[in-house]
Amino acid sequence: MQPIRLGLVGYGKIAQDQHVPAIHANPAFELVAVATQGQPCAGVENFKSLGELLESGVQVDAIAFCTPPQGRFALVQEALAAGKHVLVEKPPCATLGEAMALVEHVSEQGVSGLFAWHSRYAQGIEAAREWLSTRTLQSVQIDWKEDVRKWHPGQAWIWQPGGLGVFDPGINALSIVTHLLPLPLFVESAELRVPSNCQSPIAASIKMSDTRQLDIRAEFDFDHGHDELWSIEIRCAEGTLRLDNGGALLSIDGVRQTVSEEGEYAAVYQHFQQLIGNKASDLDLQPLRLVADSFFVGSRASVEPFYD
Amino acid sequence: MQPIRLGLVGYGKIAQDQHVPAIHANPAFELVAVATQGQPCAGVENFKSLGELLESGVQVDAIAFCTPPQGRFALVQEALAAGKHVLVEKPPCATLGEAMALVEHVSEQGVSGLFAWHSRYAQGIEAAREWLSTRTLQSVQIDWKEDVRKWHPGQAWIWQPGGLGVFDPGINALSIVTHLLPLPLFVESAELRVPSNCQSPIAASIKMSDTRQLDIRAEFDFDHGHDELWSIEIRCAEGTLRLDNGGALLSIDGVRQTVSEEGEYAAVYQHFQQLIGNKASDLDLQPLRLVADSFFVGSRASVEPFYD
Repeated sequence: MQPIRLGLVGYGKIAQDQHVPAIHANPAFELVAVATQGQPCAGVENFKSLGELLESGVQVDAIAFCTPPQGRFALVQEALAAGKHVLVEKPPCATLGEAMALVEHVSEQGVSGLFAWHSRYAQGIEAAREWLSTRTLQSVQIDWKEDVRKWHPGQAWIWQPGGLGVFDPGINALSIVTHLLPLPLFVESAELRVPSNCQSPIAASIKMSDTRQLDIRAEFDFDHGHDELWSIEIRCAEGTLRLDNGGALLSIDGVRQTVSEEGEYAAVYQHFQQLIGNKASDLDLQPLRLVADSFFVGSRASVEPFYD
Repeated sequence: MQPIRLGLVGYGKIAQDQHVPAIHANPAFELVAVATQGQPCAGVENFKSLGELLESGVQVDAIAFCTPPQGRFALVQEALAAGKHVLVEKPPCATLGEAMALVEHVSEQGVSGLFAWHSRYAQGIEAAREWLSTRTLQSVQIDWKEDVRKWHPGQAWIWQPGGLGVFDPGINALSIVTHLLPLPLFVESAELRVPSNCQSPIAASIKMSDTRQLDIRAEFDFDHGHDELWSIEIRCAEGTLRLDNGGALLSIDGVRQTVSEEGEYAAVYQHFQQLIGNKASDLDLQPLRLVADSFFVGSRASVEPFYD
């Protein structure tokens, strides 16, 4: 079988650290072109823009989007109009409206699309899903707490309007719980704590539920010092499941479980390959919808200014 | 033909002023039951809750929802589970997530649903749509400015989290422009001006566009004194269309046009009747999506406190 010829747009940190190594390690893909405005990617043809790439005559079947979400909508539409399959980094777009429109455009074009919620491919997730599938859910507690100075040093965009603030890591937790739980989730209320010199929250408490009134609480904190905590605890009638380290570690009633050994992005590209093979798509809006609704109905409190 | 037997939930101001008169004036409907916690509705059976109504043995084919959007999601689901058609006042739900789920539930139940964006039925709208359908669009300016003290005296909920603030009237303008324009709209940026003692904006400036980069601007003001302004001006290559008085008046290049004589709610119920007859639904999420995205990506400025 011929490999899927892949173009990549935006050769920044996430592309260099995660996408390109995962693509090179997967024989189902061949990276043939990169469009980027920064340093070029070795070993492939480089272009200044997606438009140049698409007009160059280089044959690509699919495009991976690793540019920031602002401005990505127009780029993905350009690739769809050219009949390419698309893989879109999280969060897929700057607004929910753009993401909803992309879902329709992918369907209209008859290509495969993947919103790559990479945390859903953390090592403990599949085993957690399997265990939960036969249990009676009682409550969910999410704690996603880290030091923004360590993970986003000097990244002013995260505090600007449309920047997600603490929801930038928090959306990873939301992508996991929406993948683990059987029913859609809804925001009931949210408290957003916004530094007085910023537009986006540095911390948030969110209360969610599903149509069976499952009690789901999330605590996001972006100013948590160096003692990181990325955990999801799901209490069931039969016992308590706990994911730690962002989903990499799984325990049931305190007993560590065997998990997958595959890396997140290796699994992302394997899933993309299967979607293309099956002429299917996986474009889940739910994590972004929960963030938008948290901003929509959340109360805001001004907290002390943030300095990097 | 038998009339459609209708139940109504929430016999408050909008039900008394608009829904019930429109229902009584339309022989296609028969109002047979009301569920409300306030004063009863004359001439029909009254119940304390939708649950009581549905269990009473009174036969209804459809339910109209006039309760506040908070809590409406569960009620509408209850009606859908009982196989009833549903008409839902604007805004349909407290969050976009709830509204998106309702769209799916209506489809799964195979009944008819209507999100009743009543301003779309203002007298000038159909003539405006027809004129615009053959014109080349250039830009859109929305001005929606009124005195909240006159229209919502003492209504503290409007300023609380999840209350829409100036988007409560503004969503009417958004429901009209999304009905007039051929392509979906997207929020590019928004400035929300929030009184220092409130959670919701008292004024907002929004920049939107469609996939053809149409320039769409909206100015919402809730503290505008008594000189009300509810206008939409659409510049085209062939001339300028202007709606005033919330869509009741239409002019082209300054010349007043003939418009419909039918009232908004008369037209809402006529549309609902046709949807039921055609086994169809009209559940447009777009106005609520534009509001949620404005809160999501909008910048906030604190302005002087608001006192009723």
